[in-house]
Amino acid sequence: MKKILILGAGRSSTSLIRYLEENASKYSWQLTVADQDLELVREKTNAPTIAINFDVFNDDFRDAEIEKADVVISMMPAKFHPVIAKSCLRFSKSLLTASYESDEIRKMSNDAKMRGLLFLNEMGLDPGIDHMSAMQILERLKGEGHTITGFESFTGGLVAPESDNNPWNYKFSWNPMNVVLAGQEGPAKFVQGGKHKYIPYNRLFRRTEFIDIEGFGRFEGYANRDSLKYIKKYNLQGIPTIYRGTLRRPGFSKAWNILVQLGATDNSYIMENTENMTHEEFINSFLHYSEDATVELKLYRAMHIDQDSAIPEKLRWLGIFSNEKIGITNATPAQVMEHILSKKWQLGPEDKDMIVMWHKISYQDVSTKKNVDLSSSLVVLGEDMTHTAMSKTVGLPLAIATKLLLNGQIQLSGSHIPTKKEIYEPVLKELEGFDICFKEKRT
Amino acid sequence: MKKILILGAGRSSTSLIRYLEENASKYSWQLTVADQDLELVREKTNAPTIAINFDVFNDDFRDAEIEKADVVISMMPAKFHPVIAKSCLRFSKSLLTASYESDEIRKMSNDAKMRGLLFLNEMGLDPGIDHMSAMQILERLKGEGHTITGFESFTGGLVAPESDNNPWNYKFSWNPMNVVLAGQEGPAKFVQGGKHKYIPYNRLFRRTEFIDIEGFGRFEGYANRDSLKYIKKYNLQGIPTIYRGTLRRPGFSKAWNILVQLGATDNSYIMENTENMTHEEFINSFLHYSEDATVELKLYRAMHIDQDSAIPEKLRWLGIFSNEKIGITNATPAQVMEHILSKKWQLGPEDKDMIVMWHKISYQDVSTKKNVDLSSSLVVLGEDMTHTAMSKTVGLPLAIATKLLLNGQIQLSGSHIPTKKEIYEPVLKELEGFDICFKEKRT
Repeated sequence: MKKILILGAGRSSTSLIRYLEENASKYSWQLTVADQDLELVREKTNAPTIAINFDVFNDDFRDAEIEKADVVISMMPAKFHPVIAKSCLRFSKSLLTASYESDEIRKMSNDAKMRGLLFLNEMGLDPGIDHMSAMQILERLKGEGHTITGFESFTGGLVAPESDNNPWNYKFSWNPMNVVLAGQEGPAKFVQGGKHKYIPYNRLFRRTEFIDIEGFGRFEGYANRDSLKYIKKYNLQGIPTIYRGTLRRPGFSKAWNILVQLGATDNSYIMENTENMTHEEFINSFLHYSEDATVELKLYRAMHIDQDSAIPEKLRWLGIFSNEKIGITNATPAQVMEHILSKKWQLGPEDKDMIVMWHKISYQDVSTKKNVDLSSSLVVLGEDMTHTAMSKTVGLPLAIATKLLLNGQIQLSGSHIPTKKEIYEPVLKELEGFDICFKEKRT
Repeated sequence: MKKILILGAGRSSTSLIRYLEENASKYSWQLTVADQDLELVREKTNAPTIAINFDVFNDDFRDAEIEKADVVISMMPAKFHPVIAKSCLRFSKSLLTASYESDEIRKMSNDAKMRGLLFLNEMGLDPGIDHMSAMQILERLKGEGHTITGFESFTGGLVAPESDNNPWNYKFSWNPMNVVLAGQEGPAKFVQGGKHKYIPYNRLFRRTEFIDIEGFGRFEGYANRDSLKYIKKYNLQGIPTIYRGTLRRPGFSKAWNILVQLGATDNSYIMENTENMTHEEFINSFLHYSEDATVELKLYRAMHIDQDSAIPEKLRWLGIFSNEKIGITNATPAQVMEHILSKKWQLGPEDKDMIVMWHKISYQDVSTKKNVDLSSSLVVLGEDMTHTAMSKTVGLPLAIATKLLLNGQIQLSGSHIPTKKEIYEPVLKELEGFDICFKEKRT
C-alpha cells in the first residue's frame, strides 16, 4: 500500500482528491488529506481517506506526517513550499506542487537527485498545462523541421457564459488576493520583433490585445510576469517574439486599471482606521480633498472617465461608492479591495467557472518557406462552485503525475517543471479523457 | 584642542568645511575630513585641516578615526549611518548628520543617552531648516494662544533665475539618483480637512498645487513621503490639515510623470543589454512594438500628449530620443535615466543654484476668532557650482550645531531631530547672519 499525503484542501484540491480517491483501491493507495480547517477536509473526502488537522508551522507534526507518506502533494500557498520540501528531503519523499519553481526549491534539486526524489513544480494549469501543451506543439513542429519564429500564450480563469451575469464578466475561481495583486511582482518582460520590452505595473492594464476563440467570443489579454525565462525553459533561444499573458473579457482591464491607478491595490502599507471606514471613504482617501463634489464624480474627473465610458457601471456595481462599513482592522488597501470584491465576485452555488487557454505558435514552414500561425485553444467549463474547471485543470495534472510517479512511469529525479516529454505525453493523453482537449487551427 | 571628524566631502560638504575651518583657530578645533576620494578632500580643505582617505567598510580604520575624534559629522549616504553610529557608541562620541532619523538610529537613543552623547539627525535643509523654522513659528503662535488648524511645508532645490536656461527650469544641486527615485519610498500620506489621504507613486506628479513667492514667481509642489509622522514630531495632534511637499517650477512634474509612467525610473530590475543600447532604444523598450512609427511618436500616442503640449520640448531637450549609446552595463532603468539626465541637468561652473522653502500655517486667532494664513518663505541663491545654496543650507546648520555642542550650549543627549528650542533658536539666529532669513506674510 502506497501512502499519498495531500496538504491543503482548498478550492483547487477538489478534483485532485476525487481522482485519487476514485483510483485508490485499484492502485492500493492510502490517502491522507491535511488542512488547518478539518471541517473542509471532511467535506471533501470519503472513507477510507484519512482527514487530519494540519499546521504547517508545527515542525514535529509536519515531519511526522511527511515521514509516514510515500509521496507528498502540496496545495498550500507557494511560500510554504521551501519548508515542506526540506522535510521531504529529510525523509526522502517526492513532492508535487502547482506552484512556480522558486529559487529555494531549485537549490534543493541536487540533494533531491542524490536521494532519487522528484520535486515536480508547476504541475497545475498555469503553470502546468500551459507548459505541457506548448512543449508538445513546439517539439512536434521542431521535429518536423520547421523554424519557430514566435510564441504567445494566454490563460484565464473566468466565468462560464451561462453564469456570466455581472458587468465585469468575471468571478473568482481561485485565491482572490492573487487577483488583487496580479502584476505587482515586477514589470512584465517579453520579446517582440527581436526587442526586449518592459511594461510597468501602472501601464500593464492598458497594454492589452484581443483574442477570439471560436464558440466563446472575444477575450483581452495583458502581459503576465517575466516571459523571458521561458526562452530557456522551452528551448526557444533566439526566438524573435515570446509573450505570455492573462485573459479577461474585454473591458475588464481598463476598469481594473482605475483601481490600480488610484492605489487601491497597494499591499505595502497599513491604512489608518479601515475598521470604521465605509467603502466610499476608502475610495475618497485616494482622491483630492473637496467639500462639495461627490466621491464618485471626483474619481471620474481624476481618471478622465467620459460619460459614455463603460467603466462607471462596473465600478458602481462593485459597491465601492457604498456606505457599507469595511469593518476589518489594520488592513492594507489591497486587503480592503479583496474584502469588497469578495462580496461581489464570488461564484454562486450553481455557477460554473471557465478556463480558457490559447497558444499561438508562428513558424516558417520547412518546405513552403511560408510563415504559418498555428493556434491551439482549450476551454474547460466547471460543474458548480465546488467542482470548478479551475480545480479540475489544476488538480488533475497533479493527480495523474502522482499516479505515473507511483507506478514507475516517471523516472526523473531532482527539481523539474513538466516540459519533459516523459511527463507531458502521458499526462496530456489522460487529460483528454476528462475533456481537457486542445483544438488546433492554422492561418 | 577639540577634534572634529567630517566623513564625506561631496557636494553638500563645501560650506560645512568652510565654516568649521574659518572658526577652527578661534575655538581651537582640529579638523579631519575623510572621503574615499582623497583628491576631493584636498580640493575642499586647507591646512591645518587633515585630509584622509576613508573606507567606511574598513572596521578597524573607521573605529580608529572615530576614536581619535571628539565629535563626528557624517555627510555619507544615510545607509551608512547605523554602522557609523555603532562606532560612535563604542567610543562615546556624539554624531551629527543631515539624514532622516532611521529606526536603527532611534533604537540606539537610550544607549547614547546613558553615555551622555547626542545623535543629532535631520540637521540639514530638508530635513533640518524646515523643522527648525516650522517649530519656531508653531511654538510662537501656540504661545500666543492661537489654535493651529493647518500646516503645509514645501522645499525645493532648484536653479537660480539667472542660470535657468533649460525647458525643465531644473538642474541637479544634490545626488541625482535621489531625484530619479523621488517618491518611490511608498505612497505620499497626509491629512486634509481631517481625512487621511494617500497618493501612489503613479499619481504623485499629477497631484500638484501652485505656490507663488514674491520676487521669484510661481512654483509647483507635489507631496513628499509621509507627512503623518510630523503630527507627533511637531506636537500637532488632531490638526485637520498637514501636508509636506517638494517644489519644482510649473510643468516639471507633468513632464517627469511621463518618464514615471513609462517605467523609466524603476530601480528594481536590471535591463538586458544597456551597454549597447541607444537612448532611443531605451525609451522604445517601454513602448509597444511597431515596424514603422518612430519612438517619439509612439511615446506621445501612448501617453496622450497633445501637439500643443509643453512636454515634447522638455523630453526632446533631454536627448532621450537620440542615437547616443548608453554605454553602462547591467543598469536598472533608473540608473540609465540618471546617466542620461546627468549629461543635461548638471550645473555649469558659473551656474547658481537656488533653495526655496515655503511654510503655510493656518490658525484661528485667539482674540478675533478669525482664520489667518501665515506664510513664511526662504530663498537662498548659490555662488557657483561648488559653493551652492544647497551646500550652504545643508552644511551650515550642521556646522553651527557642532559649534554649539562643543561649546556646551546644547546639553541634550540621545537621538534627536532639531525640533527643540534649545537647538533651533540659536541655529536660526546665526543662520540669519548668512542671509538665511525667512519672510513672513499674513493673509
